[in-house]
Amino acid sequence: MKVGIAGYGNLGRGAEAAISQAEDMELVGVFTRRDPSTVKIHSDAPVYSFDDMDKMADEIDVMIICGGSATDLPEMTPALASKFNVVDSFDTHANIPEHFANVDAAAKAAGKIGVISAGWDPGYFSIARIYANSALPCGTDYTFWGRGVSQGHSDAIRRIEGVLDARQYTVPVPEAVDRVLSGENPELTTREKHTRECFVVAEEGADKEEIERQIVTMPNYFDDYDTTVTFVTQEELNRDHAGLPHGGQVIRSGRTGWDREYHNTFRFMLDLDSNPFFTSSILVAAARAAYRMSQAGESGAKTMLDIPPVMLLPESPEYARAHLL
Amino acid sequence: MKVGIAGYGNLGRGAEAAISQAEDMELVGVFTRRDPSTVKIHSDAPVYSFDDMDKMADEIDVMIICGGSATDLPEMTPALASKFNVVDSFDTHANIPEHFANVDAAAKAAGKIGVISAGWDPGYFSIARIYANSALPCGTDYTFWGRGVSQGHSDAIRRIEGVLDARQYTVPVPEAVDRVLSGENPELTTREKHTRECFVVAEEGADKEEIERQIVTMPNYFDDYDTTVTFVTQEELNRDHAGLPHGGQVIRSGRTGWDREYHNTFRFMLDLDSNPFFTSSILVAAARAAYRMSQAGESGAKTMLDIPPVMLLPESPEYARAHLL
Repeated sequence: MKVGIAGYGNLGRGAEAAISQAEDMELVGVFTRRDPSTVKIHSDAPVYSFDDMDKMADEIDVMIICGGSATDLPEMTPALASKFNVVDSFDTHANIPEHFANVDAAAKAAGKIGVISAGWDPGYFSIARIYANSALPCGTDYTFWGRGVSQGHSDAIRRIEGVLDARQYTVPVPEAVDRVLSGENPELTTREKHTRECFVVAEEGADKEEIERQIVTMPNYFDDYDTTVTFVTQEELNRDHAGLPHGGQVIRSGRTGWDREYHNTFRFMLDLDSNPFFTSSILVAAARAAYRMSQAGESGAKTMLDIPPVMLLPESPEYARAHLL
Repeated sequence: MKVGIAGYGNLGRGAEAAISQAEDMELVGVFTRRDPSTVKIHSDAPVYSFDDMDKMADEIDVMIICGGSATDLPEMTPALASKFNVVDSFDTHANIPEHFANVDAAAKAAGKIGVISAGWDPGYFSIARIYANSALPCGTDYTFWGRGVSQGHSDAIRRIEGVLDARQYTVPVPEAVDRVLSGENPELTTREKHTRECFVVAEEGADKEEIERQIVTMPNYFDDYDTTVTFVTQEELNRDHAGLPHGGQVIRSGRTGWDREYHNTFRFMLDLDSNPFFTSSILVAAARAAYRMSQAGESGAKTMLDIPPVMLLPESPEYARAHLL
């Protein structure tokens, strides 16, 4: 399976590493909007300009699009789906139906497959919700994120005057998780579910009280949460908070039986040292499925909810039945 | 969707309850090998003899086969797959490839779908392994069962002379789970992973020491485990151990990154008040998928690994994309 990577940020680097762990895949090249000569990648694969893509359509079985959901993917995924089987990690939940329709139209017209919103949320967390709801129609879903770095919240802090750098961790409240697991089906407010921990590097002489006030009162990002702010030096931030760990859990608490007398807990948890490297590992598995669906004559937009699990696995269905079922 | 239930033990009763929670399904009837007039079911659905099945082929969209894996399903599932879309919970792992081939031949010849080995293990646990292995090709799988009742082990104790009744719990060893979660990828022996707790009702005057000796030395069932035996009265057993709770967890500990520098834990857990009622809830979801695959023109044997998640859900793919992705 010949694979291309479009975009070389954190996700692109993760996809490159994940492809190296996939024995059934070969990285044909990395495509960049920058000057290719300035982009140094980890492997020996060539680096091309985006402009070189069109003429390589026959050499690439599936293109993994590693761009941002805000501005890159809404344009890139439909455009590339008219030439390649593609996979993206579009994660703006509210806009998924529109993005799906755009990719579907482009992919169907070209006879290609476009898998959108692959990753872990959306992605594996969504899949967990589907399995949980299918088995337990009478029940309640809960999602907790973290402990992990939210890049969006870290960026928001960095935009405050006097802030040089910042890292924000989203942290689930243990008592809330315990209440969910107990089966009481609590209604939990935003504040009851997560806390936010901020590690901030301030400019010399900056008004730290004012920075803290601006953080904890920031609408949408922080004002609905119990937020703690800790000022650290740049050295401390680099030393203790350099990684991008994340994770979380999907829980469904549901009841079976005629009188709903049996309580059941369905719980899916991820604990990830590197959020982008795990996300791109799923992108690579989804790329495998995209190519296989294309080979089977299918076309159009798909999400991970539409993909039979066995299509993600390098091994054959026979192997999976004998060894993993 | 018109559904039949073939067999009315614990699983059949659970399927009946689960169908009542499914707004898109109607229970056409329960089929029994006993005299139908002697089988009292919970709902108002009619009870038929197995012999009545053939003439009802047009009235049933999918038949949920609720039989045992040892002797019932190897015969029943291929036989019924030649007339109906069917679902079973065949769980003899070693014989799945043979059972798959038999059901595949019968179902393909009849243009029907036969979903085999639905449930949670095999089933949801298998699916978890597929997703975990697809995202983390470099890693190790672990499965822990319990705390829960093993009916096979309970039956084995009951066959010992002097034993009137028994309940056996399979219990995961917390230290083993902790070692797995730490990322050390331990090699664990059978004894290190689970303990077995037996609650036994002995005949009056029975040699309890001899019963205990026979239990803890029983090959395959107990001799590889640390087993505790507690003698109780029938009243205590009925009061404290009447249920069939079960559960467990699938964990994959795996590494991403060029130097496998990032550790990741994928963990799927179930905690079930009633093992048969949860299993049959999944059978009902799989029945929905079987009918939908049949409507889409597919035929042959399938496992849950072959089913796109969204096919299990009562709601539409559009709903799932908008609300659960």
